Amino acid sequence: MTVRTGEQVLVYHSERAKFLVTFQPGKRISTHLGEIELPETLEWGAALQSNIGKTFYVLRPSTSDVAMKVKRTTTIIYPKDAGWMMLEAGIGAGSRVLEVGTGSGSLTIMLARVVGPEGRVYSFERREEFLKNAISNVERAGLADRVEFALRDPSVDGFGVTDIEAAFVDVPEPWTLVSPVFDALMGGGAWISLSPNVEQVKATWKALKERGFVRIKAVEILEREILIREHGVRPRERMISHTGYILSARKVLPPSG
Amino acid sequence: MTVRTGEQVLVYHSERAKFLVTFQPGKRISTHLGEIELPETLEWGAALQSNIGKTFYVLRPSTSDVAMKVKRTTTIIYPKDAGWMMLEAGIGAGSRVLEVGTGSGSLTIMLARVVGPEGRVYSFERREEFLKNAISNVERAGLADRVEFALRDPSVDGFGVTDIEAAFVDVPEPWTLVSPVFDALMGGGAWISLSPNVEQVKATWKALKERGFVRIKAVEILEREILIREHGVRPRERMISHTGYILSARKVLPPSG
Amino acid sequence: MTVRTGEQVLVYHSERAKFLVTFQPGKRISTHLGEIELPETLEWGAALQSNIGKTFYVLRPSTSDVAMKVKRTTTIIYPKDAGWMMLEAGIGAGSRVLEVGTGSGSLTIMLARVVGPEGRVYSFERREEFLKNAISNVERAGLADRVEFALRDPSVDGFGVTDIEAAFVDVPEPWTLVSPVFDALMGGGAWISLSPNVEQVKATWKALKERGFVRIKAVEILEREILIREHGVRPRERMISHTGYILSARKVLPPSG
Amino acid sequence: MTVRTGEQVLVYHSERAKFLVTFQPGKRISTHLGEIELPETLEWGAALQSNIGKTFYVLRPSTSDVAMKVKRTTTIIYPKDAGWMMLEAGIGAGSRVLEVGTGSGSLTIMLARVVGPEGRVYSFERREEFLKNAISNVERAGLADRVEFALRDPSVDGFGVTDIEAAFVDVPEPWTLVSPVFDALMGGGAWISLSPNVEQVKATWKALKERGFVRIKAVEILEREILIREHGVRPRERMISHTGYILSARKVLPPSG
Repeated sequence: MTVRTGEQVLVYHSERAKFLVTFQPGKRISTHLGEIELPETLEWGAALQSNIGKTFYVLRPSTSDVAMKVKRTTTIIYPKDAGWMMLEAGIGAGSRVLEVGTGSGSLTIMLARVVGPEGRVYSFERREEFLKNAISNVERAGLADRVEFALRDPSVDGFGVTDIEAAFVDVPEPWTLVSPVFDALMGGGAWISLSPNVEQVKATWKALKERGFVRIKAVEILEREILIREHGVRPRERMISHTGYILSARKVLPPSG
Repeated sequence: MTVRTGEQVLVYHSERAKFLVTFQPGKRISTHLGEIELPETLEWGAALQSNIGKTFYVLRPSTSDVAMKVKRTTTIIYPKDAGWMMLEAGIGAGSRVLEVGTGSGSLTIMLARVVGPEGRVYSFERREEFLKNAISNVERAGLADRVEFALRDPSVDGFGVTDIEAAFVDVPEPWTLVSPVFDALMGGGAWISLSPNVEQVKATWKALKERGFVRIKAVEILEREILIREHGVRPRERMISHTGYILSARKVLPPSG
Repeated sequence: MTVRTGEQVLVYHSERAKFLVTFQPGKRISTHLGEIELPETLEWGAALQSNIGKTFYVLRPSTSDVAMKVKRTTTIIYPKDAGWMMLEAGIGAGSRVLEVGTGSGSLTIMLARVVGPEGRVYSFERREEFLKNAISNVERAGLADRVEFALRDPSVDGFGVTDIEAAFVDVPEPWTLVSPVFDALMGGGAWISLSPNVEQVKATWKALKERGFVRIKAVEILEREILIREHGVRPRERMISHTGYILSARKVLPPSG
Repeated sequence: MTVRTGEQVLVYHSERAKFLVTFQPGKRISTHLGEIELPETLEWGAALQSNIGKTFYVLRPSTSDVAMKVKRTTTIIYPKDAGWMMLEAGIGAGSRVLEVGTGSGSLTIMLARVVGPEGRVYSFERREEFLKNAISNVERAGLADRVEFALRDPSVDGFGVTDIEAAFVDVPEPWTLVSPVFDALMGGGAWISLSPNVEQVKATWKALKERGFVRIKAVEILEREILIREHGVRPRERMISHTGYILSARKVLPPSG
């Protein structure tokens, strides 16, 4: 299969030399392992030689590649967390979801890939410089068609959308958003937030309980890399130990009558 | 928003009393906490009383709920692993993916939700009784339209599909599938397998290397539940420590020339 | 080497059939795998047959065996935590240490083995029924000669000892003991506490800082069992995820002059 | 309490500025935070000022401090592992233990502190430059009186000691020592080894089983640091994920008769 002009490819030599680029015939990529010229017709999986003889491969970028390679103005959400969050939220192709704050757009990209062209990501950010960077990251990933960005503080102004399936909250004070998110969600819809500190999780848990959310739970996801070599298999010596705690909850309606 | 007839809902009282059911107006659900009668018009998020006065809520099922509630004939893939696997594979709405073996259909369901109605899951299983059960689980989840099941041993007969974006392999001897999966994948496409034992991972890693796959890596994902109570926050005392090692790799083409 | 009368031995068939007993020539042990009669002269490592033909071995008990096999009236401190705590405290043969509360005496036993006959463990407990049980557990382990027990609430009455090398604190409100422990410790001596909840750790940390302790740090220790079988190595599926957080600190003197 | 001449003290400003020194009255210590002069009479816990006004404290070194501060010619055993190993082995004041290989002497120091002056550590190393460095590390820690070093390959020449309570094995090929360790151990005594790779653990496990050891088990110990700050508690972002797998087993005697 050939890569279409404008598609993102991962030009890969190793984990330390990999480049996420938008394909243009004849494009030149400068790397510390030499210059690579993309051919007129580029096959997925093709092997390319740099001008100093290093081999690079044309790979389909993983969602992780796209999300982790954004230009960062903030800390980003890791795929180990995002994968769990999206499955817990129950979203898929066609879902309408809400995100606050946009940050660098890393989670925006992961959400946008999962909801697909028929879905919708409403993404809110109150700092203009973050939003501009995120928009450009999402555009570069070719996913802007399904994302609506808003420069707004929803803890003050609300979201202006309703019947949302799931809300993804990554702000320092998630508890300020519990009430506006409640209003935006459909009945039974999911709150998902991520916070590094225990105190944030506890304060948010309290606010969720008070607002009537149910099925509140918290988890932490750890990813451990395993080194496989002919002479021996073992976990890598160092790992990311902590990114954040994930808190999830469900909106329910007050008993009628 | 109202639940449509035939949609799956999670009728939820607590983690120990939750029921994944297909909505039919007037349907009765018998539980150890009393009988619940679904109304003619069911609102998402609605509170229902059982005949002994217990409150249940009508929640959108998470992907985890749907995947974990399948009728099991085999061990299943946990959402903590599945989320990472799907993001690493880079799949989303519209993707064409391959699964072997189908098992109880738990991963099939997660894949089917992510690829959406425009995508395609080709799912292979060689034991007929497993396949029958999995098909009925996927049908109950309302996702059969995008899944093609095959009763076949692809290590012998191949897959009969090509240009696949990602292959998900959950069989006891994954190395037997390295060559047929290579043939089925598009260039740059992803191999993702899950195995409980180190020996399986190492043998598969060797086979992948020999067949020319690149970017081979292995990880383990751990999920730790955090208990939040007014008087104290701490991780739960016990956890699932190990489900399996995830191995991922990419197909590349031989240098042309 | 032969077991001396009165020594503790572990009569071991498997992890599910192991018995910590005090050796007496001719003693009979009744188990669910038959009755075992200890011979007049018992060799360390000897194989014994029960009257239904099961084989048991005479093993040196690990500190873990002795500490975990106490009659429990409280939760106990696990060896994974105790080992770290004792090394962090820097104690060894001859050390003088303080323990509060005694609980079931599990940590008392571990401390008593490490400080040896030349050392001293001052162990404080305010509930009489706990103390009685703990004393009998420590006596059974043959270690009572180096332990001084006191039925007292040191948060009210102090410890009545000074120049202690390290204090081990395992009570629900460790912060109430910060000041009396400061008075009991030698300069540079170690505070070591263990608490299950984050809130306890934080409150204790605050109290330690206010009282002038330095080098305050908190860790969590996890133990993961690895299953080794001919056909496959993997971590056991379930594990103890959390017992408690360990907090350590050092007493320093105010600047003189 | 005053520090005796020749005792080791930890001169501590912070985790990044701490110095393990042997006390001599009037000794000067040069650091990147200024020069410190030790007084004629040094109190444990005393606050000292460097010549640029930084405060250092005179702390009792933890076993971890002494063991981790050795001059390293090899990787060392971490306290998280050593604590578990010593408790599993059941050693304490007065124990006679065996160590192979000595490496940098880090575990030798921890063992020597625990067995005390009445105990004995027999430590074997086959590379002379390692042994010399380890001896000087153990001497600096003031523990040489209870350690007997031997420059020898015990897989060839055996240990020349018997009735040992526990053997600690930290060499690349532990299985080569199973038979000599069996001969050196008392009945019921403990084998404890540490290896980074799964393959090493499995090969050693096989050799232990063949030689008749029982109660073979493997664990992995993880230490996670928790950051406590007024504004938030969370695990530190990065951690040591893997040092090694610990394998333990017990020697038993063949059935007599």
